Amino acid sequence: MIMPIITLTTDWGTKDHYLAAVKGAILNHIPEAQIIDISHEIAPFDLNETSYALRNTWKYFPKGSIHIVGVNSEASLQHPHVVIKEQGHYFIGADNGIFSLVFDTTPEEIYELDVILESNKFTFSTKDVFVQVAKHIVHEKPLNELGDKLDELTNKMAFRPVTEPDIIKGKVIYIDRYENIVTNIDEDLFKEMVGKKAFTLFLRAGKYKIKTIHSSYSDVGEGELIALFGSDNMLEIAQNRGRAAGLLGMQLDDVVRIEIES
Amino acid sequence: MIMPIITLTTDWGTKDHYLAAVKGAILNHIPEAQIIDISHEIAPFDLNETSYALRNTWKYFPKGSIHIVGVNSEASLQHPHVVIKEQGHYFIGADNGIFSLVFDTTPEEIYELDVILESNKFTFSTKDVFVQVAKHIVHEKPLNELGDKLDELTNKMAFRPVTEPDIIKGKVIYIDRYENIVTNIDEDLFKEMVGKKAFTLFLRAGKYKIKTIHSSYSDVGEGELIALFGSDNMLEIAQNRGRAAGLLGMQLDDVVRIEIES
Amino acid sequence: MIMPIITLTTDWGTKDHYLAAVKGAILNHIPEAQIIDISHEIAPFDLNETSYALRNTWKYFPKGSIHIVGVNSEASLQHPHVVIKEQGHYFIGADNGIFSLVFDTTPEEIYELDVILESNKFTFSTKDVFVQVAKHIVHEKPLNELGDKLDELTNKMAFRPVTEPDIIKGKVIYIDRYENIVTNIDEDLFKEMVGKKAFTLFLRAGKYKIKTIHSSYSDVGEGELIALFGSDNMLEIAQNRGRAAGLLGMQLDDVVRIEIES
Repeated sequence: MIMPIITLTTDWGTKDHYLAAVKGAILNHIPEAQIIDISHEIAPFDLNETSYALRNTWKYFPKGSIHIVGVNSEASLQHPHVVIKEQGHYFIGADNGIFSLVFDTTPEEIYELDVILESNKFTFSTKDVFVQVAKHIVHEKPLNELGDKLDELTNKMAFRPVTEPDIIKGKVIYIDRYENIVTNIDEDLFKEMVGKKAFTLFLRAGKYKIKTIHSSYSDVGEGELIALFGSDNMLEIAQNRGRAAGLLGMQLDDVVRIEIES
Repeated sequence: MIMPIITLTTDWGTKDHYLAAVKGAILNHIPEAQIIDISHEIAPFDLNETSYALRNTWKYFPKGSIHIVGVNSEASLQHPHVVIKEQGHYFIGADNGIFSLVFDTTPEEIYELDVILESNKFTFSTKDVFVQVAKHIVHEKPLNELGDKLDELTNKMAFRPVTEPDIIKGKVIYIDRYENIVTNIDEDLFKEMVGKKAFTLFLRAGKYKIKTIHSSYSDVGEGELIALFGSDNMLEIAQNRGRAAGLLGMQLDDVVRIEIES
Repeated sequence: MIMPIITLTTDWGTKDHYLAAVKGAILNHIPEAQIIDISHEIAPFDLNETSYALRNTWKYFPKGSIHIVGVNSEASLQHPHVVIKEQGHYFIGADNGIFSLVFDTTPEEIYELDVILESNKFTFSTKDVFVQVAKHIVHEKPLNELGDKLDELTNKMAFRPVTEPDIIKGKVIYIDRYENIVTNIDEDLFKEMVGKKAFTLFLRAGKYKIKTIHSSYSDVGEGELIALFGSDNMLEIAQNRGRAAGLLGMQLDDVVRIEIES
């Protein structure tokens, strides 16, 4: 039996009834569905956290998986509901910019959902619309029956690091449960710019400095600071067995600066 | 393959081992079970939150689903364990009043569980008793083998709004993760009493007033207050992209008053 | 269809992407897997909480279940990755002492995982290594293909109660969501030492005393203190419908002393 995988990424939390109502609706319409939670603790309405969660998980799922995004999922003229196909995966949500942050390039296929909604009645899009679309996909019906094809997604620019010949200026994009500090400087950029040259990573305007990249948290002693490229290929500042963000007093959007020795 | 759906609604949280022990026991006795969490973050012992969670979710699940309630699940003479059948769904728990708040009318079938318990030993009812009952249901054995039929449930009165000819006086029954404020005034009552007449909704003894019902959070600008009937058909006060409860300083059980212009 | 059960016990939380990435990888390699969360709210790096969660749950799952431990899962020379077979269950993790706290005796079979890791690249062991091992087990390949057999586990001594002829001195090992206080005094030890003799349980250096063991929280009135052996067979101090730890001002590692009348 093929069990279609449906993932859910939302800002609903897990206490309220919203999530279970949607899971019930999914199982009602797609009884063989395997439902997997990506995250439901996205900060309310936060597009960056949403795309970060989805970006770092969807590729690990089997092809054919359907990824439903329940954050800011009300449709509007500017931000219609869309279904996206990319590398054998499907994505359903409102085109409010989240998806442009999930993919590095425009996805293979994008369709604007052409769903007639009752206009005077509260609509819970994820339950009332997205589940129907997921069912359509599971039944292997053509995506173009769902609506018109779009050429591109609403573009929300990711804040990319700023570079000068010997400088990379990035910022903190995520702080995880361990208070590891994730930056927007990825391994490719670092290798291209720094290569085998010496460098200094400045944190808190130079209050803290790191001059080495390690490959594992335990490469340094307990309590010591470390920089490494994590499982998402992003430069990460951590404290072995500690809480780097708290220790360093660093927060989301703080600047991280690398000076390369020439 | 039929995968019987078993939902769990508890106040156990998800950190402790209680939930996983029960899931293990379910899969041990019903290997093909599909287990779905309704909520495990019910405030400890809170019957109102429990019934609110279950009331707003069970109907979305497929018929045949078995809903286990692990809140205040110790049996007593006044509050025996029961199994309930309603519209093709099954419910298992202690008859402590929760179920009378889940259903608007007496359910189709109610049986008092006739299970012999060891008397000197701690019993974890959900794991030790309810899983056995679920297995009995999955195996399609008659419910009346489980115990005697009951005519009615222990009745815990829901606090219904008080109405005068031109007034509806309700209260706050739930505050969700977004700090949306859910009241006990449902759409039917509102339509019957207010219809197309003008009205004023008074919050915090008149400190805040709302005179319109909208149908979607985004019908007003960001940060503005809005009243609408949510997915549970209850009158809800929200702040578009904000946190209404915090903003208004409103809490559970606070009064919400509607004056209708005659 | 056999759905292999894979449980996950981690300190990753449920907000970050780590958990969903691993679930995706599991379903990618073992499409028929049934994934069950034991707990993801283990305090970061806490071996005691990890073993307590696993110890009190694994036996309830069906034989053949695979239990993956994602706490402190980096391998080192002292703490290699291992796969363990015990009573038909499989366990995968780093041999850092957790497993010696899960089992009372040395498990039936232990193998040190002989996996070649790239050395310069960050490794997310649970996703990159443990999922492969789980797949190996699901495909019923011999465990000895995975690495060399070990005779014993890294031993982390559980703090056992100290006993004198008429005294049991234990400590608090866990406080659950209800603020029930779980001690390391198990029912067997209590029965052997106390039997039918009178005893006094001293809490907070004698500030609170209990002289009876009950079998159910509701054996006492609401708000009253109670001692009982919980579902994990450990002596537990609770307050019926209350929060014992907060009430008594008790914390993890606090002493609990039983004096037996001779």
